[in-house]
Amino acid sequence: MPVFQATTSAPVNIACIKYWGKRDNTLILPTNSSLSITLSQDHLRSTTTARADPIFSETKLWLNGKEEDIKSGGRLERCLAQLKKMRKERIEDKNPNTPKISEWNLHVASYNNFPTAAGLASSASGFAALTSSIAALYGLNTFTPSEPAVASPSELSLVARLGSGSACRSLFGGFVAWEVGSSLTGEDSLAIQVAPQEHWPTMHALICVVNDAKKGTSSTSGMQRTVETSALLQHRIKDVVPARMKAIEKAIKDKDFDSFARITMADSNQFHAVALDTAPPIFYMNDVSRSIIALVEELNRVSLAKTGHLVAAYTFDAGPNAVIYTEEENVKQIIEIVVRYFPQSDTNPFPDPFKLFAGKQPKAAPLPEGFNEGVAKVWEVGSVKGLIHTRIGDGPRMRGEDEALLGRDGMPKVLA
Amino acid sequence: MPVFQATTSAPVNIACIKYWGKRDNTLILPTNSSLSITLSQDHLRSTTTARADPIFSETKLWLNGKEEDIKSGGRLERCLAQLKKMRKERIEDKNPNTPKISEWNLHVASYNNFPTAAGLASSASGFAALTSSIAALYGLNTFTPSEPAVASPSELSLVARLGSGSACRSLFGGFVAWEVGSSLTGEDSLAIQVAPQEHWPTMHALICVVNDAKKGTSSTSGMQRTVETSALLQHRIKDVVPARMKAIEKAIKDKDFDSFARITMADSNQFHAVALDTAPPIFYMNDVSRSIIALVEELNRVSLAKTGHLVAAYTFDAGPNAVIYTEEENVKQIIEIVVRYFPQSDTNPFPDPFKLFAGKQPKAAPLPEGFNEGVAKVWEVGSVKGLIHTRIGDGPRMRGEDEALLGRDGMPKVLA
Repeated sequence: MPVFQATTSAPVNIACIKYWGKRDNTLILPTNSSLSITLSQDHLRSTTTARADPIFSETKLWLNGKEEDIKSGGRLERCLAQLKKMRKERIEDKNPNTPKISEWNLHVASYNNFPTAAGLASSASGFAALTSSIAALYGLNTFTPSEPAVASPSELSLVARLGSGSACRSLFGGFVAWEVGSSLTGEDSLAIQVAPQEHWPTMHALICVVNDAKKGTSSTSGMQRTVETSALLQHRIKDVVPARMKAIEKAIKDKDFDSFARITMADSNQFHAVALDTAPPIFYMNDVSRSIIALVEELNRVSLAKTGHLVAAYTFDAGPNAVIYTEEENVKQIIEIVVRYFPQSDTNPFPDPFKLFAGKQPKAAPLPEGFNEGVAKVWEVGSVKGLIHTRIGDGPRMRGEDEALLGRDGMPKVLA
Repeated sequence: MPVFQATTSAPVNIACIKYWGKRDNTLILPTNSSLSITLSQDHLRSTTTARADPIFSETKLWLNGKEEDIKSGGRLERCLAQLKKMRKERIEDKNPNTPKISEWNLHVASYNNFPTAAGLASSASGFAALTSSIAALYGLNTFTPSEPAVASPSELSLVARLGSGSACRSLFGGFVAWEVGSSLTGEDSLAIQVAPQEHWPTMHALICVVNDAKKGTSSTSGMQRTVETSALLQHRIKDVVPARMKAIEKAIKDKDFDSFARITMADSNQFHAVALDTAPPIFYMNDVSRSIIALVEELNRVSLAKTGHLVAAYTFDAGPNAVIYTEEENVKQIIEIVVRYFPQSDTNPFPDPFKLFAGKQPKAAPLPEGFNEGVAKVWEVGSVKGLIHTRIGDGPRMRGEDEALLGRDGMPKVLA
């Protein structure tokens, strides 16, 4: 009997127009549209192996080798139910000879190649990998452009959204919009690709992993509190975001980095502004985050005066880490500035995937002419724990058998 | 020949509904109404002596003993011109026998009894003291309730406003509103008293002076940038503030501390939210400020669960210092909590004006039952540089000759 198993990987995405607020907590329907850039799976990814077998006594999930509880009526169960329904209705009911694997229990093992301590939300890549691996197991997606899929990435994004809102955007590569939608049942609140990664392949990202003394408010409870108490959020939802979505889509289509950067920075700041306008207030950025903002703003100020153009855009999610978007040619200079103010430990080697520093630790370089050195202080080593240099990337990928996370016995190969 | 000289003092005020944004930069007309509490001059005050003399060759101003430049067409000149006009039209033109001192040059010496390093805005008390001292010199105000004044405090608030917007609120004691007004010439943008200090005399304030590594954006240029770039400010101006003004005035009239505290904290946070929604973003609070917020929020959470009531309200102006409003009976507990997380240097004696700690350095006490100790870390000594305990206070006061800052020769007694 054949083994019904598939392994896929899915990328992390970092929003430029932020998702903050749900209009439906169960279906995870947002209060506004959002837009993100998909980051390369060469550097950051969740990999998931899904297997269906009639001998499995129950459906089980292992996350980084540790078995997770599948809550009845929870997010994970809702995702699985949707995928089973798609498999049954679109394949099994139409072709009575296909095996009815939707009736079998599943074993699912998922692994993030980035440590939780990196402070990157793993729920987006995680639920996207879960969705795409089960979809592959069920024959719903093909990963072959020439072969039409039974379920499109946008349809699968509806499933991933049930697991974690921003996961829907990880079903595509490139620049991805999550449409707010208007339906109460959520079928129009899905992800669409605004532009593929090939459209603007020089878009790079530098993640500054910031040391955080304490765990902040979870985004689920934080956004709920903002919806309930912020006097400014409704204005953001109704008036600000719709205009920004149009403007940033145009900037992306025109490869207009200046407009892209201005909108991205403004929207990051506005997201943190409505978090602060919450009772009690929510703070995700700390003094280190503020210093990174000061460096990017100063670099842009100097560049604007010299060339008429901006060079970088910061954005912060629900935590203190900065993601700096910039064109490939500027990454080295930005790293040199960041490490000048945030000295790196020698025992924390910089992966340097693009060989900007010959695989060595990056060194501070003289500041650009006219750069006001005093915009930030020099912080102690460890304030920025590490730098991750990556770029725009593609959507979920099929992975080979050799990368499967389940062994021949259907159990995880590596346990926590 | 008699000496034409008057000395008055004026208080600091700290807003509960914040002023942020001008609709007219010259006349200093605000984009929204604001409301403040006047703090006691027993602890914090600006004192000003004004003298008119035909022998003075020019008008001069000394601030803390240092001569200041009086810019032509500047704020100070506009204040002086208004006061001279009032003197001339209301007194000299009507009583030809009164000396025409409005035609003489002035010597003005002003002194703040709190160090600039305390990070308290001195422009409000400073321009209020300047206005009231010249008004007293010119016979416009009387400081005697039984004797009608030639110019009411609200009329004088129009003059102080020309010097520094928030100075207009320091012309009254107690709870003071600055009406936004609608006139283009500003005659209806004035301060009125919502309630005198006797209405709610148990209202106390604890100022936590926070160490700040670097000078932030000046409020004048900061608010200008917010008006120009914040997408959220217009909503605050149009919809949020008018409702909050009504609600906080009712809370004050009802002595409803819970509502007063909720509105005060929400408005402080919203002011900092629109500052963050500015391009480039403006940050006034730092990680120490955030920790103070966390302590007050936690204390309120515990108290709410236990008694159904809040005990404290934080508010932050354009800097990292916290002002905590609370009823007199709660001040000691709040100080004990603050010094637990922000240990004070022994060389920085606490003035203890209300003898809560027998004039000694306050000591940390056990946290209230149920208080989550981990809401903030214990900071290094000096993170909060000092504590100033004060209370609600009265408006400008006449000062005796012994407190005059100008000598018999018309020159400042103390030079910087």
